[in-house]
Amino acid sequence: MVDENSEEAGIGKRALFGRHPHFAESVNGRQLLHSISRPCPDDAPNFARWLVSQSSWGVLNTISSDWGGAPFGNVVSFSDGLPDKGKGIPYFYLTGLDPTASNALKDQRSSLTLSEYSLGTCGNTDPENPICAKITLTGKLKLVDGNSKEAEFGRTVLFVKHLEMKGWPKSHNFQVFKLEIENIFMINWFGGPKPLTVDQYLHPKM
Amino acid sequence: MVDENSEEAGIGKRALFGRHPHFAESVNGRQLLHSISRPCPDDAPNFARWLVSQSSWGVLNTISSDWGGAPFGNVVSFSDGLPDKGKGIPYFYLTGLDPTASNALKDQRSSLTLSEYSLGTCGNTDPENPICAKITLTGKLKLVDGNSKEAEFGRTVLFVKHLEMKGWPKSHNFQVFKLEIENIFMINWFGGPKPLTVDQYLHPKM
Repeated sequence: MVDENSEEAGIGKRALFGRHPHFAESVNGRQLLHSISRPCPDDAPNFARWLVSQSSWGVLNTISSDWGGAPFGNVVSFSDGLPDKGKGIPYFYLTGLDPTASNALKDQRSSLTLSEYSLGTCGNTDPENPICAKITLTGKLKLVDGNSKEAEFGRTVLFVKHLEMKGWPKSHNFQVFKLEIENIFMINWFGGPKPLTVDQYLHPKM
Repeated sequence: MVDENSEEAGIGKRALFGRHPHFAESVNGRQLLHSISRPCPDDAPNFARWLVSQSSWGVLNTISSDWGGAPFGNVVSFSDGLPDKGKGIPYFYLTGLDPTASNALKDQRSSLTLSEYSLGTCGNTDPENPICAKITLTGKLKLVDGNSKEAEFGRTVLFVKHLEMKGWPKSHNFQVFKLEIENIFMINWFGGPKPLTVDQYLHPKM
């Protein structure tokens, strides 16, 4: 792979740090949470937690029972906690009218994919360039018991980041789901995926 | 589902059309192609083609051979043609160092998921709200013969939208892949997925 001090890495650094001054405001109506700045890419646990907490939406992937077991990605909003108090576990608000929830009730295998490009902090770097970070959390997508304290927590942290959710039609029977993470694939620099265990991710050293 | 004239739809319209004047410039360094304006959501074929052609990246899903057949989403750049001359079929530039290409060589089942939220044209509407459009193209992810005219076409349309790709390291052996579309799932308004065949998508009436 590419050495961090190579000319190629230098180009990457210039592309990243020569970014437009207004990018932090370009997240389509949602400001970045400036109280936590972008961690050093070498600090994989804190970098991953930053990327997940700053993101408001991603692509949630399930196995499609309708389309011959094909992998089916769907755009969803999520939240891993109150602003600046993310806990790393993504909660979703899904309706069975949508294939993702019904797929997950038949086969829980799932992944959630996020791009730093959505945050506006990649500057002019291409979304597929490894210095524009991306993460895929793979695991099981589980329905949370609607009467549990965990579902109450899920609704609280979802509604605070997605104000309109609270008013979504009751007839659609939205329910709280969560992703139980089993594997983490993150690229945030040259050199391939960062080694990162679920335990390191859930309990990063500050 | 929700009636288009209901109060709920009204809230949606206000959220969408009350958008920030600079959103068209907020696509992280890439201007929207203003020569083609956002089609009416009722015109499913042209709307889908607009969304695909305006997007520069998405989440490409494959079946993970490493992680027990889990659906594995990965952030990728793509192109369906020259600017304003999209043909609807996404081409990718992938390296076997990345799991997506190696997964596809073992099992071609795949999907590509895009959100209109990335374009900056959803205003303050939540990414999971049906009036902020999303599309998932499901099909087979196929390697294009590197010496073919189609591969040359793929490289041309990729490099014109992703300038830095041309300089990516030869040692990584990037190759052109394409998604052969078999099913289209698009939501761009209330009322569930829009009925849309692959033939209607590939040959929209102008």
